[in-house]
Amino acid sequence: MDHELHQLFDPESSTFTYMLVDVATREAVVVDSVDRMVERDLGVIHRLGLTVRYVVETHAHADHVTGAGLLREKTRAKAAAPFKCGISPADVQLAHGDTLAFGVGEALLAIHTPGHTSGSTSYLWRGNVLTGDTLLIDGCGRTDFQSGDAGSLYDSVHERLFTLPDDTRVWPAHDYRGNTVSTIGYEKRHNARLAGRDRPAFIELMANLKLPRPKLIDVALPANLLLGIPHAA
Amino acid sequence: MDHELHQLFDPESSTFTYMLVDVATREAVVVDSVDRMVERDLGVIHRLGLTVRYVVETHAHADHVTGAGLLREKTRAKAAAPFKCGISPADVQLAHGDTLAFGVGEALLAIHTPGHTSGSTSYLWRGNVLTGDTLLIDGCGRTDFQSGDAGSLYDSVHERLFTLPDDTRVWPAHDYRGNTVSTIGYEKRHNARLAGRDRPAFIELMANLKLPRPKLIDVALPANLLLGIPHAA
Repeated sequence: MDHELHQLFDPESSTFTYMLVDVATREAVVVDSVDRMVERDLGVIHRLGLTVRYVVETHAHADHVTGAGLLREKTRAKAAAPFKCGISPADVQLAHGDTLAFGVGEALLAIHTPGHTSGSTSYLWRGNVLTGDTLLIDGCGRTDFQSGDAGSLYDSVHERLFTLPDDTRVWPAHDYRGNTVSTIGYEKRHNARLAGRDRPAFIELMANLKLPRPKLIDVALPANLLLGIPHAA
Repeated sequence: MDHELHQLFDPESSTFTYMLVDVATREAVVVDSVDRMVERDLGVIHRLGLTVRYVVETHAHADHVTGAGLLREKTRAKAAAPFKCGISPADVQLAHGDTLAFGVGEALLAIHTPGHTSGSTSYLWRGNVLTGDTLLIDGCGRTDFQSGDAGSLYDSVHERLFTLPDDTRVWPAHDYRGNTVSTIGYEKRHNARLAGRDRPAFIELMANLKLPRPKLIDVALPANLLLGIPHAA
């Protein structure tokens, strides 16, 4: 029953990669890898003696190229992605409520949380929720491109994440201020965008953020639909 | 019985701070805090709803100022340090084999591992060993100042760390290459300085590293003997 959650950080894209480990068998799931950090990930996998069962995506990222395809090649893991993301070379196409089994009785539960993108999915495991770009620490992902929708994000967070127990740990796909982990209870009470704001006010807020277009979107998005490597299709 | 280990990184000094959590009670121990990261640490403590019982030092650091004194002020935790480190304002002076209790039945075990400094201590908790600067991932701390001794470090590692189970996770105080976690088994087999090298060869290697004097030692060391704040004495 012993388990580990490892959080790794890519300082260039401010992306967190997660490794979820069943200690008894050393079987693991890797979530949101980054292509330029794959050598680091392989080092950790080797040092910890892990057998990776799945490399998993929370969504098709626009800000970095995924390492999922490379990791699949190197580890013989299967790739899993939300089916609504259109990542066709993924071996497993996940729908809301699907689970990925690993280790002895471990299961990662897919919770469809659209809004940042229409396919965005969070993953629940042992009191931890990996929220991708849907819910960030004291923030949330943008909703102004790539099938994003502020109303959907608001509904996803309130109906499918804020309904989890307050002490559920929140592990986001990014942080830009040195934060690493939060809880559902904290975000319900303090999240600067989502706490104490109704749906219309949130939609208005998100419509007026005036964020720049992500620098890497034209490279990253097509690559990520192929798991990050051109021949993965 | 559920528990969490959180690893936080200070990019300026490449220092890892650890928070060990008993999930049932949210009681925690913080190991090797950094003064300039105390606001971050307090944010994590608040978000996770932690009650910090102890702020713990692995040794008197020469490369950064500890946040232990500040954290003690802000959280009402007790400060604990190895008694051989001479950190006189620490509430608890730890000897080899001592334990710090927190949560429901959780205990952090002090393992005296001299070599980087004469007081350097590692901490064992639930299959995890926090090795300070004694054993790093694919390396070890320097032994050329501050009561350091290469022979002692060799003995500490071989007699008190490499005797732990191979799958014990190794969590160092620093990493400079993007690594985060290793295992005893990996370091026994692969550590670039310590694997497959006898004691005289290790002592010779360490004597010829010709490392520069740590930039912050004249500031950090006196401060750290006072838990990082002048009025902590």
